[in-house]
Amino acid sequence: MRIGVLTGGGDCPGLNAVIRAVVRKGISTYGHEFVGFRDGWRGPLEGLTRPLGIPEVRGILPRGGTILGSSRTNPFKIDGGVERIKANLADQGVDALIAIGGEDTLGVAAKLADLGVNVVGVPKTIDNDLGATDYTFGFDTAVNIAMEAIDRLHTTAESHHRTLVVEVMGRHAGWIALHSGMAGGANVILLPERHFDIEQVAEYVDKRFETQYAPIVVVAEGATPVEGQMVLQNQELDAFGHVRLGGIGQWLAEQIEKRTGKEARTVVLGHIQRGGTPTAFDRVLATRFGLQAIDAAHDGDFGKMVALRGTDIVRVPLAEATRELKTVPIERYSEAEVFFG
Amino acid sequence: MRIGVLTGGGDCPGLNAVIRAVVRKGISTYGHEFVGFRDGWRGPLEGLTRPLGIPEVRGILPRGGTILGSSRTNPFKIDGGVERIKANLADQGVDALIAIGGEDTLGVAAKLADLGVNVVGVPKTIDNDLGATDYTFGFDTAVNIAMEAIDRLHTTAESHHRTLVVEVMGRHAGWIALHSGMAGGANVILLPERHFDIEQVAEYVDKRFETQYAPIVVVAEGATPVEGQMVLQNQELDAFGHVRLGGIGQWLAEQIEKRTGKEARTVVLGHIQRGGTPTAFDRVLATRFGLQAIDAAHDGDFGKMVALRGTDIVRVPLAEATRELKTVPIERYSEAEVFFG
Amino acid sequence: MRIGVLTGGGDCPGLNAVIRAVVRKGISTYGHEFVGFRDGWRGPLEGLTRPLGIPEVRGILPRGGTILGSSRTNPFKIDGGVERIKANLADQGVDALIAIGGEDTLGVAAKLADLGVNVVGVPKTIDNDLGATDYTFGFDTAVNIAMEAIDRLHTTAESHHRTLVVEVMGRHAGWIALHSGMAGGANVILLPERHFDIEQVAEYVDKRFETQYAPIVVVAEGATPVEGQMVLQNQELDAFGHVRLGGIGQWLAEQIEKRTGKEARTVVLGHIQRGGTPTAFDRVLATRFGLQAIDAAHDGDFGKMVALRGTDIVRVPLAEATRELKTVPIERYSEAEVFFG
Amino acid sequence: MRIGVLTGGGDCPGLNAVIRAVVRKGISTYGHEFVGFRDGWRGPLEGLTRPLGIPEVRGILPRGGTILGSSRTNPFKIDGGVERIKANLADQGVDALIAIGGEDTLGVAAKLADLGVNVVGVPKTIDNDLGATDYTFGFDTAVNIAMEAIDRLHTTAESHHRTLVVEVMGRHAGWIALHSGMAGGANVILLPERHFDIEQVAEYVDKRFETQYAPIVVVAEGATPVEGQMVLQNQELDAFGHVRLGGIGQWLAEQIEKRTGKEARTVVLGHIQRGGTPTAFDRVLATRFGLQAIDAAHDGDFGKMVALRGTDIVRVPLAEATRELKTVPIERYSEAEVFFG
Repeated sequence: MRIGVLTGGGDCPGLNAVIRAVVRKGISTYGHEFVGFRDGWRGPLEGLTRPLGIPEVRGILPRGGTILGSSRTNPFKIDGGVERIKANLADQGVDALIAIGGEDTLGVAAKLADLGVNVVGVPKTIDNDLGATDYTFGFDTAVNIAMEAIDRLHTTAESHHRTLVVEVMGRHAGWIALHSGMAGGANVILLPERHFDIEQVAEYVDKRFETQYAPIVVVAEGATPVEGQMVLQNQELDAFGHVRLGGIGQWLAEQIEKRTGKEARTVVLGHIQRGGTPTAFDRVLATRFGLQAIDAAHDGDFGKMVALRGTDIVRVPLAEATRELKTVPIERYSEAEVFFG
Repeated sequence: MRIGVLTGGGDCPGLNAVIRAVVRKGISTYGHEFVGFRDGWRGPLEGLTRPLGIPEVRGILPRGGTILGSSRTNPFKIDGGVERIKANLADQGVDALIAIGGEDTLGVAAKLADLGVNVVGVPKTIDNDLGATDYTFGFDTAVNIAMEAIDRLHTTAESHHRTLVVEVMGRHAGWIALHSGMAGGANVILLPERHFDIEQVAEYVDKRFETQYAPIVVVAEGATPVEGQMVLQNQELDAFGHVRLGGIGQWLAEQIEKRTGKEARTVVLGHIQRGGTPTAFDRVLATRFGLQAIDAAHDGDFGKMVALRGTDIVRVPLAEATRELKTVPIERYSEAEVFFG
Repeated sequence: MRIGVLTGGGDCPGLNAVIRAVVRKGISTYGHEFVGFRDGWRGPLEGLTRPLGIPEVRGILPRGGTILGSSRTNPFKIDGGVERIKANLADQGVDALIAIGGEDTLGVAAKLADLGVNVVGVPKTIDNDLGATDYTFGFDTAVNIAMEAIDRLHTTAESHHRTLVVEVMGRHAGWIALHSGMAGGANVILLPERHFDIEQVAEYVDKRFETQYAPIVVVAEGATPVEGQMVLQNQELDAFGHVRLGGIGQWLAEQIEKRTGKEARTVVLGHIQRGGTPTAFDRVLATRFGLQAIDAAHDGDFGKMVALRGTDIVRVPLAEATRELKTVPIERYSEAEVFFG
Repeated sequence: MRIGVLTGGGDCPGLNAVIRAVVRKGISTYGHEFVGFRDGWRGPLEGLTRPLGIPEVRGILPRGGTILGSSRTNPFKIDGGVERIKANLADQGVDALIAIGGEDTLGVAAKLADLGVNVVGVPKTIDNDLGATDYTFGFDTAVNIAMEAIDRLHTTAESHHRTLVVEVMGRHAGWIALHSGMAGGANVILLPERHFDIEQVAEYVDKRFETQYAPIVVVAEGATPVEGQMVLQNQELDAFGHVRLGGIGQWLAEQIEKRTGKEARTVVLGHIQRGGTPTAFDRVLATRFGLQAIDAAHDGDFGKMVALRGTDIVRVPLAEATRELKTVPIERYSEAEVFFG
């Protein structure tokens, strides 16, 4: 078999580990051949390829990013896109495609599978918001980076008797905020899943100031206050109704400072959460995903996605991947609330 | 309720996170009181206590070790030990005990539960070898520390065209070796679960030397070769039949050097695998274990142990904890073997 | 002797290491007594103290921040401030004061020394901009944190064929940008000491895009373009003429994106650069500063500041500390320029 | 000019940073050509080369080890070795050689310079024991790795009320032990420069056990007790009179356990101290060394070695490099002693 591999959407620590596992097992165990498609769906769409064999995947396990490049190109939004992909796959003699990506990338994969393309999906979402799998790689790395930042901020906050607001990734699901906040000993954690009351936040902050410790507020970028509390003046909302320009973190710091009378500062972690070398958890998970994906392709078990269930790697229908957004359930948030204030 | 807490056995990153969660929720949600017992079962045996309230658990979440101290004391091996424990618990007015520990500590807890003591167990094993739970805290930290060491050793091995043998923890189960070896891109991984053939190991090593990369061999301290290969001369075996003095890592390096004609060196990671600040995974898991343990104690649901199943924290009978050693199954080892050589 | 200790200005990894060294040697070698003043000059001004002995300094060596707290209070800007300080020092029976801080804190110390107060200074500036010492503690930690962030950003930039602009600390001196940029393999480094030409920056970026590597631009927060290039519309300048709201990093990303036609993103590292555990370099330097400071106080050698010269810790007049800002000389910038583009 | 580059001796984080700086500046600023010699002096001896241009040095700045490989080959110990080197340099059209290495490598370089070979040296010693330079790259990385291990060991030692002995590199000079011990808050630090009294060590350990903290003993591998204290039975000495088999760390732990009646354990850090990515200090220093080395070669200033003096990179005669071993002076050890016990 000749198998194409592509990575789409935002980059995520562990992508290279998947690619390496697919190629290593595909060649040494099954004797398949590989071709790498560049930059997500743009690769098969425009026929952009690169060689992909044992030499190309040596040494990439600990490297962040993706050697194949990525993009957000969606062939279904391009006239004749699907036909061009089919033609290019045929030109390249590709029998099967392994697509590694998030909701969008796998959504395209699912539709192509319905149209007869032999696809296996590998789920990737740094936000941990895909319903079909317990965890995806990249999430653990992001949470550890955020936690280490929070660890550092505790002492600076205490020395200056300040509140520090840490804005982490999470537009629609607050998993990174929840886990990094729990791990970092945050005073308050705010998620997109639940509108927060700024007065309540200020109360928690005030309460923490009664100790020698200073408050750390962890906020997902997509979190918003209850209706009426955010009167926007110099700020705009983006397409999702989230605060642009300055962000929710900066707004929170201003509001907390006003209410508590004590300085508040914001740190926006941004892209460092998704770059760099993966944690052990993510390297092992990504490797196991890759092994299962090449097994599925070898078995001709197409239209499937690999997934983690407990400690097992299983195959589920690709369609499941995008069926529902996995948000933080109320019970998990309640666990964190024990430590608020 | 007045609740005692103790930590037993080898220390493990995350113990303090459990203690903190138990105490924080116990006091703020349920209004319980706490007393800390020092140094594992020696605490209730000898009536050694320390205060345990909100101030004592502030700031301990990121700290390795245990503020309560630990020991391997087993009251069932001491004349009148059980009676003394019961008497001391009564003296201290303790209604329930939360025991955090591994096979030995929980074995004592299970027996005490049978004798009418109100106990809830929290599983702890850096080796990940308790059958009743998917993972325990401390394991992820140990794996990451070992992986970071392996990452470092790759470049030194390559520069000198040497084999590096990394000996990691794991007397009876090879989970740390398996995960750190997979995450670190090891050339060979050797586990206690499977006797290895030193000739085969040397072949894998030779094969890696054909590339620009140098071989890293990860070996669990309890791994042993097939019968007849290890002719012990200046070395002794310990009670479990494992190599003492120098260890299996050193023996391996000598054998590999002899067979390949290229230098080999050993690094024994030892205690750094169990010390220091926990990873985010371990802090979150330990915190969730603590929350579930105090819930169980509050509910009067004694004789139980908390456990991770998938993404849920559940309660299982304490007796299950020690029923069987969870070793690495053959399928998991086969995943790793794809990358050997 | 009874000696007061205070820490002023922005916090900095290593402050606690200084305090520990002062107290440990002062008590064990010389038999002095100590009192901690809280929150910089506010402590002696308002008579805010805390106990400071061997138990208080145990375990603080690896901790960021300062156990004494900090502030930017300047007694010379407060009516009767100096008299109140003198009175409070007398009340506390303090014979000598060890003041740990930056330009402002040491400026106050120098003036108080002229007024007869027995002061020894310890220089602290995360920006490394004090002329009287080769290095100060905190700088090495900040540079390593920034470098690790840059390391992480390389792979994410490459995967998405994006420019990443990293804004680091440095309002008046670009040392953090210079060293973290050199260490992180930045494509361009922009400093406050030298107006940059945005067209030249865009050329460097374009040139890097010709390789498989993506450009990382490291910019000190105080860097500014040559005259006329920054037409401010929705942005304001602060008191120093620096870009507020959004910052120079965001402006750069917008300009680079416009000129290169490729996406550019910004990461502002902010407070994580000054928090958390110090590096070995900073712990050793801070400890040696503390030892020399208590020696100076014991010798009655007041009005002095400790300083690093080569590998030696020496004493220099306090007045020297604030005489001139140590900016990046042209030769050092030229070293970095070799790697631009 | 056509310039050869080689790296000799034990590997050291920062070697690749030197190579990169040499090549980048040599090509972009001066237009020179480069050839890489493999595996130290074995390269020019046996004519083993590899291409060395801009593409070969891209991305190597953060990588440990050396892309050129290393060895301990000494051409002066090989019949006709020098002639073969001269012949191979001529064959390759090499006008000048940049040799990066420690005492041995630079000793060869100095002798070759006397014989008319155009050599520039770059000092490398992870042990920091070259007298001609304030610091060398690799040392700061090794110290940080050791310090992080010590940080981790504190909590495990405390939880078990154990002594932990940490054996670090340093056969003849104790710089790594001194700096990592000071940075890690060691209870005792033992160096090759000074025979230690095991009874005194046990006293320090006992004293620390009176606190809640547990003793950490940091020992350089080359440290030895005062005469008569080490009665060797099953142990041998190596060529330098150092303890082989088990090492000084293990001997210390046994002696401390015997004298204090409390458990003691050993960790031997070994090769992880010299592998992996360099710290910012080492990347900047190595880069600046490389820039100065290529400047010297371009200037025809041969027979020189680059060196750090204060914050400046200077050139000194190659002969100086090997003139004397820089050991830890008594004043520096006295600084550390303040914290013993």
